[in-house]
Amino acid sequence: MTGYRGEVQRILRAASVKVGDKIKAVSRGRTYVGVLMPRTELGDPDHLVLKLDNGYNIGVKVGRSTKVALLESRELPKLAVPKPAVVPDASKPRVTIVGTGGTIASRVDYRTGAVYPAFTAEDIYNAVPEIAEIANVKVVQACNVFSEHMIPELWAKVARIVAKEINDGATGVVVAHGTDTMGYTAAALSFMLQGLFRPVVLVGSQRSSDRPSSDAALNLISAVAVAAKSDIAEVTVVMHGSTEDDHCLIHRGTKVRKCHTSRRDAFQSINDIPLGMVREGQIVMFRDDYRRAGSAGRVRVQDRLEKRVALVKTTPGLPASVIKGIIASGDRGIVLEGTGLGHVPQTLFEGIELAQRRKIPVVMTSQCLWGRVDMNVYSTGRELLQLGVIPAEDMLPEVAWVKLMWVLGRTRDLERVARLMRQNLAGEITPRTRPDAFLKPLFTPG
Amino acid sequence: MTGYRGEVQRILRAASVKVGDKIKAVSRGRTYVGVLMPRTELGDPDHLVLKLDNGYNIGVKVGRSTKVALLESRELPKLAVPKPAVVPDASKPRVTIVGTGGTIASRVDYRTGAVYPAFTAEDIYNAVPEIAEIANVKVVQACNVFSEHMIPELWAKVARIVAKEINDGATGVVVAHGTDTMGYTAAALSFMLQGLFRPVVLVGSQRSSDRPSSDAALNLISAVAVAAKSDIAEVTVVMHGSTEDDHCLIHRGTKVRKCHTSRRDAFQSINDIPLGMVREGQIVMFRDDYRRAGSAGRVRVQDRLEKRVALVKTTPGLPASVIKGIIASGDRGIVLEGTGLGHVPQTLFEGIELAQRRKIPVVMTSQCLWGRVDMNVYSTGRELLQLGVIPAEDMLPEVAWVKLMWVLGRTRDLERVARLMRQNLAGEITPRTRPDAFLKPLFTPG
Repeated sequence: MTGYRGEVQRILRAASVKVGDKIKAVSRGRTYVGVLMPRTELGDPDHLVLKLDNGYNIGVKVGRSTKVALLESRELPKLAVPKPAVVPDASKPRVTIVGTGGTIASRVDYRTGAVYPAFTAEDIYNAVPEIAEIANVKVVQACNVFSEHMIPELWAKVARIVAKEINDGATGVVVAHGTDTMGYTAAALSFMLQGLFRPVVLVGSQRSSDRPSSDAALNLISAVAVAAKSDIAEVTVVMHGSTEDDHCLIHRGTKVRKCHTSRRDAFQSINDIPLGMVREGQIVMFRDDYRRAGSAGRVRVQDRLEKRVALVKTTPGLPASVIKGIIASGDRGIVLEGTGLGHVPQTLFEGIELAQRRKIPVVMTSQCLWGRVDMNVYSTGRELLQLGVIPAEDMLPEVAWVKLMWVLGRTRDLERVARLMRQNLAGEITPRTRPDAFLKPLFTPG
Repeated sequence: MTGYRGEVQRILRAASVKVGDKIKAVSRGRTYVGVLMPRTELGDPDHLVLKLDNGYNIGVKVGRSTKVALLESRELPKLAVPKPAVVPDASKPRVTIVGTGGTIASRVDYRTGAVYPAFTAEDIYNAVPEIAEIANVKVVQACNVFSEHMIPELWAKVARIVAKEINDGATGVVVAHGTDTMGYTAAALSFMLQGLFRPVVLVGSQRSSDRPSSDAALNLISAVAVAAKSDIAEVTVVMHGSTEDDHCLIHRGTKVRKCHTSRRDAFQSINDIPLGMVREGQIVMFRDDYRRAGSAGRVRVQDRLEKRVALVKTTPGLPASVIKGIIASGDRGIVLEGTGLGHVPQTLFEGIELAQRRKIPVVMTSQCLWGRVDMNVYSTGRELLQLGVIPAEDMLPEVAWVKLMWVLGRTRDLERVARLMRQNLAGEITPRTRPDAFLKPLFTPG
């Protein structure tokens, strides 16, 4: 009865259901039918988790009046056809998959439609047999949280595991991660992993792996391919490049953003083109300005962060009291997501002046997301520069936020902070924007 | 000496320069060369404003040591060729252009390269003669601010002017607006103008009108065409549809966003396709689900807003103290820009519970921007629903913020707020997302 305790466990036992069974639960007048899933670490202990037929997991609040009934007893999926045991092949690259939680870090079974967070190398080979052709896989579980609950402490934990694996001889590392905050973690790892000489690839899935339209298998195969075979010594994100199940894009970890709540091609490079793609198992690079992998080196982890940094999206008429409140709360840095070329309402200036007096760095990004901040163009921008605001070039607001946390973990000296923020440390600033580093609507007038 | 006072006026007078002259200013060791511009209402009184040769305006701080020299005395541009006076043609539609400030509300002169914020119907005809072919133009100046300094009070002022013009018989109204916060104003007008029966079109320019690459003329011509000739009784934004100077897109005012800091095709419809386009003076509609114009009616203005509404973009590990601080500051509503399908970190839940106890509505949008919030999919979303969080469907975060201000101006009843937020009032919620309502990168792998 993986993970369930107390009243919930009692009710499940009374109904003779176990994890993996198809059950019916009636709670507060509503009926739910699905496969009973193991409880996750951070889940509410008063809930049971069901995987519905549409592939989604839901939590059902359990009370004294909750009724549970077994519909179909199911065993943990076994291999349908006996397979030769996967014997490590010394000639193959060694790839470590670091699990953090989320859909892709599940045991995928194509036949039964069930998903289990159990997570071993054998599970991976069984679920996606193509992986065994590419690499010898080792699995390390860093944590098990939905990515919306990732916290900076866990970024650091993942960074230390990644560094250890690479320093111990891994050809590359794949980090399986929920998609919600994958961009934040990718940026954090990009800054934390110093002297990187092997590929580090974040991967996730937008549709859980038991749905017909799941992107999990192709994403995982492509990520392992990049970790095993590419010469990219950077932190990248590998996800579907289209809604066809035909290729994945390799995005730089500091230039990527989840741009859709549900589409498989949600991840897009912003203000830059992707580094390359994986199609039919082959890696195709689009450019050559990336850090090259080497056969030897030593990764160091700089994981010290100043967590007290605020990200503020500005709105018309936003009062200075917002900035003053942030300063009063003890925050040590502020990233503004301003408008256009890097502007904020005049109503905010007084708060920025206070930050300046308190030696709290204020960094400017744009809520346009695409394009570059340029504060020399209009008087508002020039006035903000005179107030000491640091322009973040073409950095994504959330990447600037992660970077400022990391920079403030190294120095509190305002001039050094400004210099580091304006310096391209991990590909987060594109020196020259390509004219095709923008979007166009899928819709074209007929 | 339009707008300059005190020390600045004294220095300019001493150098015998006037607005429109090309001058050199030496301030704090730096030399600036450009055309002296009139001072804007909200500018710092200690600055003079120069238009540089590259078309950008800069502010130069003036002190006792500032040196100013006249390079070239220039008169306000006159028409090079005598034109027949524009005689109002009773058969032509009547379009009112409401000026709010920003680049497009300037007097554009193709020959001299000078730009003046002087703003009369004659100026418009002189600058963009095509306009006179389309409509009889009347000009009303609502305010003169850069759009980053627009405040909700000015939205209301613009709404009242627009309503009056339509009720007085205008065929349509064009609102000339800076681009930074045009989306916010378009959303506000969409909610405020009730019973709209004529077109209301917001227009701006990304490049100031004296630059060769300016989008001002085509945008203005297209906006006047939509106001004069279309049957769209909605608030729309009309801006360049590509970097070619060949067509403008007509975006619904509640579904549009500035997606680039500098490109002419910065404005994009999000989660929906544009309503149509203007090409070679012709209006081409892409769809028929829009509110149709009528010949008679009465526009009412509902301009009451609750200004104390916060927009919070969530970040990993964001502490509940942020929400508590917002509540303590007296805010009456909160819009969250969460992750993925509508999630926030568990660390925030306690703050949301407090908001719920204080009867402060909390609305969920997604920082993905594209796609729909769906909080029934994962346990995090379901828990937030149980805490009373109101899902904002596929609304843009900033549109949900404007809408919540407007809804709270009508009612404080939490259930009514939730119902209104989930109801499509002005096209802000797309009931069914088209599969092509997404973006693709301009870059395509070769």
